Amino acid sequence: MVRLKYLVISFLVLSLLASTYMLMVYPKKSLSNNPSSIYFQIPEGATVKFIVKQLQANGIIHSYEIPLFYGYIRSKGLQRKIQAGEYVFPLNITPAQLLQKWVKGDVIIHSFTITEGMTFAQMLRAMQFHPAIKKTLWGQSEEQIMKSLGENIFIAEGLFFPDTYHFKANTTDKTLLLRARKIMSIKLMDAWQNRDLNIAIKTPYEALILASIVEKETGRDEEREKISGVFQRRLQKNMRLQADPTIVYGLKEAYNGKITKAHLQSSDNPYNTYRHAGLPPSPIALPGLRSIEAVLHPDKSEALYFVAKGDGTHIFSNTLSEHNQAVALYLQRMSNHESLQR
Amino acid sequence: MVRLKYLVISFLVLSLLASTYMLMVYPKKSLSNNPSSIYFQIPEGATVKFIVKQLQANGIIHSYEIPLFYGYIRSKGLQRKIQAGEYVFPLNITPAQLLQKWVKGDVIIHSFTITEGMTFAQMLRAMQFHPAIKKTLWGQSEEQIMKSLGENIFIAEGLFFPDTYHFKANTTDKTLLLRARKIMSIKLMDAWQNRDLNIAIKTPYEALILASIVEKETGRDEEREKISGVFQRRLQKNMRLQADPTIVYGLKEAYNGKITKAHLQSSDNPYNTYRHAGLPPSPIALPGLRSIEAVLHPDKSEALYFVAKGDGTHIFSNTLSEHNQAVALYLQRMSNHESLQR
Repeated sequence: MVRLKYLVISFLVLSLLASTYMLMVYPKKSLSNNPSSIYFQIPEGATVKFIVKQLQANGIIHSYEIPLFYGYIRSKGLQRKIQAGEYVFPLNITPAQLLQKWVKGDVIIHSFTITEGMTFAQMLRAMQFHPAIKKTLWGQSEEQIMKSLGENIFIAEGLFFPDTYHFKANTTDKTLLLRARKIMSIKLMDAWQNRDLNIAIKTPYEALILASIVEKETGRDEEREKISGVFQRRLQKNMRLQADPTIVYGLKEAYNGKITKAHLQSSDNPYNTYRHAGLPPSPIALPGLRSIEAVLHPDKSEALYFVAKGDGTHIFSNTLSEHNQAVALYLQRMSNHESLQR
Repeated sequence: MVRLKYLVISFLVLSLLASTYMLMVYPKKSLSNNPSSIYFQIPEGATVKFIVKQLQANGIIHSYEIPLFYGYIRSKGLQRKIQAGEYVFPLNITPAQLLQKWVKGDVIIHSFTITEGMTFAQMLRAMQFHPAIKKTLWGQSEEQIMKSLGENIFIAEGLFFPDTYHFKANTTDKTLLLRARKIMSIKLMDAWQNRDLNIAIKTPYEALILASIVEKETGRDEEREKISGVFQRRLQKNMRLQADPTIVYGLKEAYNGKITKAHLQSSDNPYNTYRHAGLPPSPIALPGLRSIEAVLHPDKSEALYFVAKGDGTHIFSNTLSEHNQAVALYLQRMSNHESLQR
């Protein structure tokens, strides 16, 4: 009977030591001395058993640590609180720190930038190539995509706000499009509320169309209001907009880098603002907020013309004869430039 | 003259303040209060200017921080020391810490696990689906792949060591295969040096073949030496191996989950160890080290037969009549099991 007593005591002492180790010592010991950051993914719906086995399969813990790590998580009662996603952590993290990271859902954030002046098609392509975005709209037409977004306007161009969007891996293209669409609505409406009176633009959608043209005409913030002013005075005087970027947009794949005389004369291109009066049928790109603001607050000059100086800026003219001189100067510069290059 | 003097002094004081801020204050200020981890990639050959602009484009720093961050990196003279790769860092990191991370090349490590018992084809497929592995062998035949690895043996099966491989993103499939091949050679040779005498296996390649069969016959470490022993005594007695997994391997896509009588009788299948004497022409899977060791240290019993008990373990028999009884028992169990399931 004495020996049984000792056996029971030894057993109790050993159990106590083992659980003390599992609950107190192991959780605070670094998994290794290696400070490198490892990538580890927890799939949606994974069990704790699966997660801990994956840790071992990825060489993050040893096989003998499986019961220790598993037991620790269960003892904490956190098995249902672990969040799926992509984690990156140093290999010398402790089990306690790692578990905390999983429960906090401290997953990697990815980013996707829609640049001002991109077209909807270009944005969609960039999205399809982003490895962290889940593709659900791949191969769908513009109309189908707009329907899946719950829109009843089927031209997507111009409706998504250029910005950097942050998201967790496996966010769908649809979710991101919905966010960009919503932000554009809000930003456009905010800007519209504070618009100047007496502008040539009658609706927020018209503002978006003209803003997209301004966006494509200049990359210089200091010129946006001037260019917006030129186009709005033209609209008010019933002059054609004569904006080259609209022709390019209407040509789509047929555009090969040069606008020809035939392009300028074609009425088939609904975006040819040399032949058709007023604004084109839709935006021609995703306009940024600065172009939208420029359209809602055009400059107060009398300029009706502008021509590129070749350095990214433009010369503005009030009359055609002034403008023709400016164009002549530009052509001269171009030929000088070309002769220098030869 | 007095005013010019003050102007010069003011200018000097302001410059001093600006550079003090850039070099002393800014580098130690957190980029933001957000502790989330963001994913940021530095492409091969990127300039510092590009990197800092990307930080801004990804919403990690503000536009006004571009010259500060850029100036800080240049002042440290570290512009050529920044390493390309995938980084993950908390958004509340300081510029100094971030730069240190880039210079140390503290990039994310990915892992790829080759599981024991996988076939070469299965491993290749898993590799092709791993997002961090750069695919250079996609669509190549087994022979072409072996040639690109510089091998003169054109059967790839069994030659790659099952293990977890760690690597940086964009490591090629070829690099990983070369590592797995090299490790298999080393491990096999090490094990071969210490093999038991009087085993039925004559060459390291034969050991690999038999190890792959052992690997497919059992997942239990305690059975590997016994199964290895059965097959080696059969080889020594010129008995056929009669190993089902070899037939399955030889059938390839034709295998639909059942081995039929026709399969057992077919001599067309070179892997049919019921019809062909000796070892099959190549390994049938990627064998783990424990199976290789079991082949080089078989058990010393007299068993010549084994049959699955249905729970992952086997019954071993020395004689055919013993074996037949074991099989009868197994069949009975199976039918009980099936009737219970109905």
